[in-house]
Amino acid sequence: MRIRLVNPNTTESMTATIGRSAAAVAGPLTLVEAVNPTMGPASIESHYEEALAVPGLLEQVALGELDGVDAYVIACFGDPGLDAAREIARGPVLGIAEAGMHAASMLGRSFGIVTTLDRTVGRARELVQRYGFADVCSSIRACEIPVLELDDPASDARGRVVEECRRVLDTGADAVLLGCAGMADLCHWVSDEIGAPVVDGVAAATVLAESLVRLRLATGKRGEYAFPPAKEMSGLLAPFERGAVAVR
Amino acid sequence: MRIRLVNPNTTESMTATIGRSAAAVAGPLTLVEAVNPTMGPASIESHYEEALAVPGLLEQVALGELDGVDAYVIACFGDPGLDAAREIARGPVLGIAEAGMHAASMLGRSFGIVTTLDRTVGRARELVQRYGFADVCSSIRACEIPVLELDDPASDARGRVVEECRRVLDTGADAVLLGCAGMADLCHWVSDEIGAPVVDGVAAATVLAESLVRLRLATGKRGEYAFPPAKEMSGLLAPFERGAVAVR
Amino acid sequence: MRIRLVNPNTTESMTATIGRSAAAVAGPLTLVEAVNPTMGPASIESHYEEALAVPGLLEQVALGELDGVDAYVIACFGDPGLDAAREIARGPVLGIAEAGMHAASMLGRSFGIVTTLDRTVGRARELVQRYGFADVCSSIRACEIPVLELDDPASDARGRVVEECRRVLDTGADAVLLGCAGMADLCHWVSDEIGAPVVDGVAAATVLAESLVRLRLATGKRGEYAFPPAKEMSGLLAPFERGAVAVR
Amino acid sequence: MRIRLVNPNTTESMTATIGRSAAAVAGPLTLVEAVNPTMGPASIESHYEEALAVPGLLEQVALGELDGVDAYVIACFGDPGLDAAREIARGPVLGIAEAGMHAASMLGRSFGIVTTLDRTVGRARELVQRYGFADVCSSIRACEIPVLELDDPASDARGRVVEECRRVLDTGADAVLLGCAGMADLCHWVSDEIGAPVVDGVAAATVLAESLVRLRLATGKRGEYAFPPAKEMSGLLAPFERGAVAVR
Amino acid sequence: MRIRLVNPNTTESMTATIGRSAAAVAGPLTLVEAVNPTMGPASIESHYEEALAVPGLLEQVALGELDGVDAYVIACFGDPGLDAAREIARGPVLGIAEAGMHAASMLGRSFGIVTTLDRTVGRARELVQRYGFADVCSSIRACEIPVLELDDPASDARGRVVEECRRVLDTGADAVLLGCAGMADLCHWVSDEIGAPVVDGVAAATVLAESLVRLRLATGKRGEYAFPPAKEMSGLLAPFERGAVAVR
Amino acid sequence: MRIRLVNPNTTESMTATIGRSAAAVAGPLTLVEAVNPTMGPASIESHYEEALAVPGLLEQVALGELDGVDAYVIACFGDPGLDAAREIARGPVLGIAEAGMHAASMLGRSFGIVTTLDRTVGRARELVQRYGFADVCSSIRACEIPVLELDDPASDARGRVVEECRRVLDTGADAVLLGCAGMADLCHWVSDEIGAPVVDGVAAATVLAESLVRLRLATGKRGEYAFPPAKEMSGLLAPFERGAVAVR
Repeated sequence: MRIRLVNPNTTESMTATIGRSAAAVAGPLTLVEAVNPTMGPASIESHYEEALAVPGLLEQVALGELDGVDAYVIACFGDPGLDAAREIARGPVLGIAEAGMHAASMLGRSFGIVTTLDRTVGRARELVQRYGFADVCSSIRACEIPVLELDDPASDARGRVVEECRRVLDTGADAVLLGCAGMADLCHWVSDEIGAPVVDGVAAATVLAESLVRLRLATGKRGEYAFPPAKEMSGLLAPFERGAVAVR
Repeated sequence: MRIRLVNPNTTESMTATIGRSAAAVAGPLTLVEAVNPTMGPASIESHYEEALAVPGLLEQVALGELDGVDAYVIACFGDPGLDAAREIARGPVLGIAEAGMHAASMLGRSFGIVTTLDRTVGRARELVQRYGFADVCSSIRACEIPVLELDDPASDARGRVVEECRRVLDTGADAVLLGCAGMADLCHWVSDEIGAPVVDGVAAATVLAESLVRLRLATGKRGEYAFPPAKEMSGLLAPFERGAVAVR
Repeated sequence: MRIRLVNPNTTESMTATIGRSAAAVAGPLTLVEAVNPTMGPASIESHYEEALAVPGLLEQVALGELDGVDAYVIACFGDPGLDAAREIARGPVLGIAEAGMHAASMLGRSFGIVTTLDRTVGRARELVQRYGFADVCSSIRACEIPVLELDDPASDARGRVVEECRRVLDTGADAVLLGCAGMADLCHWVSDEIGAPVVDGVAAATVLAESLVRLRLATGKRGEYAFPPAKEMSGLLAPFERGAVAVR
Repeated sequence: MRIRLVNPNTTESMTATIGRSAAAVAGPLTLVEAVNPTMGPASIESHYEEALAVPGLLEQVALGELDGVDAYVIACFGDPGLDAAREIARGPVLGIAEAGMHAASMLGRSFGIVTTLDRTVGRARELVQRYGFADVCSSIRACEIPVLELDDPASDARGRVVEECRRVLDTGADAVLLGCAGMADLCHWVSDEIGAPVVDGVAAATVLAESLVRLRLATGKRGEYAFPPAKEMSGLLAPFERGAVAVR
Repeated sequence: MRIRLVNPNTTESMTATIGRSAAAVAGPLTLVEAVNPTMGPASIESHYEEALAVPGLLEQVALGELDGVDAYVIACFGDPGLDAAREIARGPVLGIAEAGMHAASMLGRSFGIVTTLDRTVGRARELVQRYGFADVCSSIRACEIPVLELDDPASDARGRVVEECRRVLDTGADAVLLGCAGMADLCHWVSDEIGAPVVDGVAAATVLAESLVRLRLATGKRGEYAFPPAKEMSGLLAPFERGAVAVR
Repeated sequence: MRIRLVNPNTTESMTATIGRSAAAVAGPLTLVEAVNPTMGPASIESHYEEALAVPGLLEQVALGELDGVDAYVIACFGDPGLDAAREIARGPVLGIAEAGMHAASMLGRSFGIVTTLDRTVGRARELVQRYGFADVCSSIRACEIPVLELDDPASDARGRVVEECRRVLDTGADAVLLGCAGMADLCHWVSDEIGAPVVDGVAAATVLAESLVRLRLATGKRGEYAFPPAKEMSGLLAPFERGAVAVR
């Protein structure tokens, strides 16, 4: 079984972190590949960057279809391009926010989310509602740490993440979901610090994608998520016309 | 890794079906055990029977804790006793309705449910709301087949299941969830018939329980789901006092 | 008219308190009976105990059916076994959380709940949603007093209840609902202290049950709440097979 | 105990019907009075008429306060003027839609409503949402009978009401709520015809108002429903300034 | 194009403020008229006053129909009589709460409301839910200033409004809606003070009413909002029978 | 005042239709410009195409900022790129689905939507929920007409649109919203055919954008919609780094 994790930004060190996090939980017979696009933003902290990350992400999915990939994970907490990727892939596609919320909701009555910048909270709330967790998610808190600072050893980022996780528990949550792919390797450490389950969306999406493949389940293709119709694509994005054709 | 599936009714042939369904999807290093209580109803088709199935189910979980079981699946579509089982188990506990809904919701915009008797639809709807899938579940349909007739080769049960699944697709659903543990072995056949993904809750709960264990996640134990306090238990149910103590 | 209040735990002093609270509000022609099971937990402060209180509760309802009881009240704020009791009784069945919420919602725009232990808040929230009061219930607060301590004259329980009621009013609530049958006799005293209406679920359920009988209304029996089908019941719970038969 | 039912339209024959329906269910020590305003519309079948029925209704409540009335029922299914009446009355005030929905919701999982004209369905739906019954009310159907035709022996109104009640049951409802005070005396007959519980809001409101008085509960007066401030009132409505003062 | 703003209270200085606020934003070809009734309360700060303001408001709409008015604005934040006015007017009718919420919701993810007295918050919340903004409105705060004090130069009303607007922004709102027609002329000043968009419902309703007229859109007249049926109207309100007839 | 409508697909005849529809309703002092990107899909009928239309759309908004545009309309019913456009524009940005829903909701209790292909219904439903109209939108129906066929005189597209609009009215809707920018010039004709208000999102968004500018309102810039941070952008999309810088 081959599962491809697509980091939708172009920062390769983050792709490597994501790949390690996924490999640590994947089953013995599963090949996990972490990739990133060759185009787009270095990190995603605004709707503008999220929108511009999507073409490169879709290119990686289209390439995966040529390679016979069985399932995909979109490794950014805004779940960018999820619906479009579901249309062009044969197998299941999961966002890490989606997968993390599903996993966290099975650990008790409610969970909370700790994310990076305050400006990303709106998108997190939108996803909480779309996936059905509005009554289950007790709070969403930002720790005001830019994505790329999470890796900086000189930063007090880890301490601030723990502090916000504790505040989430104070709202009555049974578990905490980390709201950024860049937090993946903090997961077990934070859990030990706060004495409560902590979910990393990257790892959760990896095992849930594996699960769906083992269940022989994939996106339903009779309606909204049927392969897109053939369509003229022009200008800078003309290559995506071929891409779309290729995946069918 | 050991995962215990508890069929909360006392019908052993159904326990065997459930065990086969789970074993077919579990990973190579996972030991799957299907058990059923020694007390309670032969099948569950009413709130009364569901309530009376719970003590036997909890006994099986308490025994599992003594045996070092890693995770539990409650293999009845009403998810009976789920909150109580989460309190007394160290590891994760999943209901098959819960797990099936989570899996089905990742296959597109919406899913529908096909269950057995019309009188069970109310409970299914209650669970849909509790887990957050009220906007995601497009319809719940009953095929008016008693649970124990599903196995009867002389019955036209299979045809009626397919017919109701087709009606569910007509409401715009991308996938169908089978609403009874006794339908587990129909899953792939029905999917081929209707040309859309069909989810069996037993298999889904098995792989999701495995997933949570691999993620080192379990029920949060700081609040609502902490182990129950020591408490006097009297009469017919006096043995459950010892059971409760034993699991801590 | 005969109304039976079932205290689902086995503590007889609490049954007596419940009986007094009900008798104080029942009409002149109404016979109020407070009973408790002979099996199960001494008090209910966890999902585990709630689940194990249900068989004894259902036995009391089945006995009531033999005695010609007109309506039932389940006198525990988690409303345990409500759906099952509705199936086996001819007349109406009310939970005290359910009845208390209905009464409290008629006193203004919103109400709040003050309950015992923090670990019971999750169940209270679940019931608030099931009965439709999610937008009407402004807050649920626990005073961290174990059920059986409410009666202890040496405890400062009463003061802590008043304090939490005041906090509920600060959230804008027009009324407060007491979230435990054991608080029944505090009701008027707390109301005087805080200067706002305070609802005791036991009294509310008693008069609402009477009301339904006077309106000649009972649970609808054409669908979900029809009498349960005949079904084999085995082991420790075998007596419940007869019970179920007896009520039809 | 004195309970005043205010029929907000000026049709005295309907007031008499309402009074009979209430008297039939009130307790032996309760005095039930049915009154109607001296100003306003002959029946209420539009928002315009509902709005113009409110001053006369409030006058009746103000007079009731001078008379020492203990509780009020607003006997029109749109619950006109409910919030305003709650402000000026010391005791509880119930609308018949409100009371009927509370009663119907205690009879099973869901209920449906059968009302008069299709143009009143929007208001019924608004009330269903305000009181919290959006998930509990399975359908609202109109039988296209003007209010004042319900009494006409030459009309086939009764047959059409039964027909729409049957359609409501087909949506899975456990009970039916009649959506017009003018249907009060059809209630038991329709219930026998369709074999399911049928709720008349007038009778339901009468016994629930009695219940609240017996529980010594009334509208919370610390916030939104405090008595209105003294205020100049001019023109045609100048008498209402005195009325408002009188009730305090 | 003629747009009539109806201030539903009888205070003419407030009518003048409303008229200025509307004229400042109306298009060059639009005639804006601000009127108030000759009957009813001097200001609206309770449900009682709101109910008694409606007849005079409806009279102004009926007169407007005789005058060929194209659209109406109800200039009180409780949107009193909106449904009734929609029935009797040919053109569109907007409430200032309604219009203000629509405008505010287009400025980001969420908005908050700052209103006058705490006792009006309940009605504001009811309107938020009716119009669909329950998830979009992050908070509703009162500054405890009576309506008629807003104009008093000796009062610190303006400072308190700014303070509450800042608290609304702290809840994460992108914009603030002022919850009283009497705050109309504070709008741009408050916006400059807090550095965020501030919406005045009077101005918003004026331009939205103009917009609907330019789009040639008006209330749908096939169902709930059809002109009211002819109906006898008696007593003090008898003149309203003629009024209703006149508008058709 | 300058308002720029961006047709996010590259079909210039559709851009011209959109421009005419907007110009017909804009005020006398408003300059309306309809533009389309130089890159991307010829029409948008899938999530894949919607995602790939966004970069070209954002380029047009960035160019508009250089040109001093006052407000933007995104003229595709999926409202693609709305959040990102709000981040990079100083003035207000409206989607035509968003604006059309706001306008339609002011015409009565509820509206319905008639869209093109069935596969687009899911996205329409998602937007209905995001903007708060889940209880207000009574149905969404597709007429199975590809976007570019709407202009084809040989097609029976217009008849099918009318037919679906009639079905929407049968669900009790007071008004109909056309769910495609390509239907803009059908609006008044369909309204005459069905005898009910019909809303074209393009015209609605044009007048609402004008309204917001006249109210001096724009997207709140203190939180989620602040201008995006400076960020490296690479590969095919490198030009968008400059674009983002340019707009600040």
